[in-house]
Amino acid sequence: MKEKIKALKKAILDSEKIYLFPHVNPDGDAMGASVALYLALRKLGKKPEIILEENSPANFKFLDKDYSRMDYDSIESADLSIAIDNGDPNRFPERKELFFKAAVTACLDHHRTSKDIFDISIIVPSAAATGELVYELIKELEVELDVEIAEAIYTAILTDTGCFCYSNVTSHIHGIAAELMEVGARNNYVYRMVYETQPLYKVKLRSMAAESIELFADGKCAICHVKKRWLDELGAQKGDTDGIIEIARSVAGVKLAAFLREEDDEQIKVSMRVSDEGNVAQIAEKYGGGGHKKAAGFTLMLPLNEAMELVKKELVTCL
Amino acid sequence: MKEKIKALKKAILDSEKIYLFPHVNPDGDAMGASVALYLALRKLGKKPEIILEENSPANFKFLDKDYSRMDYDSIESADLSIAIDNGDPNRFPERKELFFKAAVTACLDHHRTSKDIFDISIIVPSAAATGELVYELIKELEVELDVEIAEAIYTAILTDTGCFCYSNVTSHIHGIAAELMEVGARNNYVYRMVYETQPLYKVKLRSMAAESIELFADGKCAICHVKKRWLDELGAQKGDTDGIIEIARSVAGVKLAAFLREEDDEQIKVSMRVSDEGNVAQIAEKYGGGGHKKAAGFTLMLPLNEAMELVKKELVTCL
Repeated sequence: MKEKIKALKKAILDSEKIYLFPHVNPDGDAMGASVALYLALRKLGKKPEIILEENSPANFKFLDKDYSRMDYDSIESADLSIAIDNGDPNRFPERKELFFKAAVTACLDHHRTSKDIFDISIIVPSAAATGELVYELIKELEVELDVEIAEAIYTAILTDTGCFCYSNVTSHIHGIAAELMEVGARNNYVYRMVYETQPLYKVKLRSMAAESIELFADGKCAICHVKKRWLDELGAQKGDTDGIIEIARSVAGVKLAAFLREEDDEQIKVSMRVSDEGNVAQIAEKYGGGGHKKAAGFTLMLPLNEAMELVKKELVTCL
Repeated sequence: MKEKIKALKKAILDSEKIYLFPHVNPDGDAMGASVALYLALRKLGKKPEIILEENSPANFKFLDKDYSRMDYDSIESADLSIAIDNGDPNRFPERKELFFKAAVTACLDHHRTSKDIFDISIIVPSAAATGELVYELIKELEVELDVEIAEAIYTAILTDTGCFCYSNVTSHIHGIAAELMEVGARNNYVYRMVYETQPLYKVKLRSMAAESIELFADGKCAICHVKKRWLDELGAQKGDTDGIIEIARSVAGVKLAAFLREEDDEQIKVSMRVSDEGNVAQIAEKYGGGGHKKAAGFTLMLPLNEAMELVKKELVTCL
């Protein structure tokens, strides 16, 4: 990795116009890593741009102080394009053409699924966040950290480690966090900006789903659901159900959890999660879905109550 | 503080039987700090005991591997008693007599309200957790950290910093966390043991309260409640409502939040929290309650709906 970071450093030093491409529907890592690198490149006297194909999400506006632009159709091509927190052109579909017009292309990412199709592909699955890689790159570039850069990297790390609680956290990550706070990053400010911006309808949707949790198989399995009517009544989107399955999975004693989202009267999207052992991918495959051992899903063309009965029967086979 | 830690070190080295007294209803900091110090004292060849007046909470049993005892009525007195994560005999009421029978008494705590009534009072409000003070003490004692001690301190820090998200986190805390993980502490294991052990009835109680959230004053205030009937139906205790007010306070745009718990038909316990500015202590005082600017409470002898109307009227005066 060290060698590739050095190669990217050289490409940066040789370039003037450097465009950063976070993935669509950018999360805290994509936004934090992009803003941190953007600010570092400005300090180096470069002309960086963050290119988006949608507005910055509301809870990351505190980072993106008008640093991003969406005129990817008309902007002139870059000397260097860098895909941030993704390594797959399908994750920046509208911006693909502009991306590949650049003289040199690169990728900074930590997703195992990313593709080695760039002039410089830095794909490090062991990194907790792309923000960690941006930190290493900024060190290599010898740009001094400031509060704004530090808070952008802190955001990337905080969000991609689930507030330092996921198993991707290392001693090194806490060491970086210590340095970022030394520079002035305000951990609680970042937390409040990112997480205390949940609209009420989202809190209520999660609560309604949590109230639907039903335990079975001696409390080892949990199932919960969201009805289409609830989304309609609350004005919520499908994406607002993200993470609901984790509420069910985290109930004491639960090994396997399933979440059913009613897409239509007889169309149910099923997600499954495993706490420790067990393989839910085999259930997903049986019904034409996909995923991996610990997290998989599929779609059933059944009414909600019938889908629930079927999923309950299948889940117990994984115990 | 350094001098006091040195004094406690001397008292420890001069003692054989050393009893640790975490506060009643012990939380992660009280249990983690106690277990870490207990293990370090054993490594020093001392005879430590953790004295409790109730069983260890289920989610801290992974730390307390039969290290605690409850026979405070019959056990012989100690050479040194240390109050852990509290500095007030009212927080270990049943064990008070045993505590003060010791030749020397001490206190290791970070609560501003603790009392300087011990032979050695180490009360450091700037510490994020008592676990941080135990870490410093163990360093001073020159006891080598091992995985078990490291995970106990990690638990203390994780729980008292809200997973590194509260404003009490410092660069130093992340530095300690880095060292603990270097020694082998498993952050995700600790997280799962502590937090993924919520019984279903607690998840449902929180959800029911969240569903009751009502915004007013242009969304700047939030109010929610728990009915006595809900507690009865779920088999929940009053203590299970801890933290519910934070759900209301964290809704996007909310500056002031109130939580009402129905104790009886005409007895309502009111809690209030402030996000940034505002002083809810003045409301609490007006109704015979107490607290501080950002968190205060009182009791009303009114039916729930009347109490809600009154609290709503009072809250808007703080905006």
